[in-house]
Amino acid sequence: MSGAPIEFYFEFNSPYGYIAACKLGDLAAKHGREVDWKPILLRALFEVTGGRPLAQLPLRGDYMMHDFARSAAYHGIAYRQPDVYPFPPVAAARAVYWAKDQDPAKAGELGLALYHACSRDNVDIATPEGVAGIAANVGLDKDALLAALETDAVKNRLAREIEAALKKGVFGSPFIIVDGEGFWGADRLGMIDKRMQTGGW
Amino acid sequence: MSGAPIEFYFEFNSPYGYIAACKLGDLAAKHGREVDWKPILLRALFEVTGGRPLAQLPLRGDYMMHDFARSAAYHGIAYRQPDVYPFPPVAAARAVYWAKDQDPAKAGELGLALYHACSRDNVDIATPEGVAGIAANVGLDKDALLAALETDAVKNRLAREIEAALKKGVFGSPFIIVDGEGFWGADRLGMIDKRMQTGGW
Repeated sequence: MSGAPIEFYFEFNSPYGYIAACKLGDLAAKHGREVDWKPILLRALFEVTGGRPLAQLPLRGDYMMHDFARSAAYHGIAYRQPDVYPFPPVAAARAVYWAKDQDPAKAGELGLALYHACSRDNVDIATPEGVAGIAANVGLDKDALLAALETDAVKNRLAREIEAALKKGVFGSPFIIVDGEGFWGADRLGMIDKRMQTGGW
Repeated sequence: MSGAPIEFYFEFNSPYGYIAACKLGDLAAKHGREVDWKPILLRALFEVTGGRPLAQLPLRGDYMMHDFARSAAYHGIAYRQPDVYPFPPVAAARAVYWAKDQDPAKAGELGLALYHACSRDNVDIATPEGVAGIAANVGLDKDALLAALETDAVKNRLAREIEAALKKGVFGSPFIIVDGEGFWGADRLGMIDKRMQTGGW
């Protein structure tokens, strides 16, 4: 079986997005699919949807902070919240779209490397320099990326992608679209698997 | 293995709660546990937590309405949104606590029968009469229930249960507590299963 790429929307600050990031490659490969990495900024989505950062809500916030680590453990993933959390995820998000234009295959590699850095290795990816260091590790041109992150073209690209995501109904992270069906949350990988296998539920 | 009852918090308007209600009995029995049915009112929780009905939020609302039916189908459950939705779930919630005082085993039987009525059979459980009809079906005294629903004791009981739920960190439906660990959402039945099996993740 094969089909259109799986659209993977996420914010780098989202630990549930990290769980999906770690699992989605194998799930896609099982069904002969690619993953299209699409970082977004939750703050920008929340301006439109009236959503709020879960971690800042009463009761819900305490639950989430406790749930991040146990959910990762349940999925067999090593998770370590970075010392600075939440951090500005803008540079990392822009870098993934820039990488996609250099070489689509590199976008996923960079996305996963950035996510490992901030969600497992306590490496700072809040700054262009931090992001560029990770990019160099996966064979991308560090200086070219640092220059690109200053350009309007790269800044506007992220803004356009977020606008397009909203039009597709994306309101959280992770949000995964398969053949037009959207799924919110790392809990939905089983449903996504079944959808690709049977086309239904 | 056996242990303390599984605390099952839910609101009758919550389709995800219905999925949990249909599955939790078998899951509990597998681990030699009982289910303690604890209906709550989301509106009362949201006053404290700042939460909002998901179905009323932009984008998220459309997603949820679509997701209810496919999630039920994924879990092999027949779901039919009642013609009047959302409906006042107060009488149904009070009835479950009243039943618990008559006979603890009847509380779960009534809870599941009420949930089937409103989430599968399009039967109105918004009124005391509707609720009492279902109660009679499971062998409870219809007239005694109708009289009880008018009493302050029964009204205060639900209010106290909601207050106690908030103190335990309950902020949504379904919310399931096993050995002090809280789980939000019907998606977490797999984690709950593993927790009861291994005591960890």
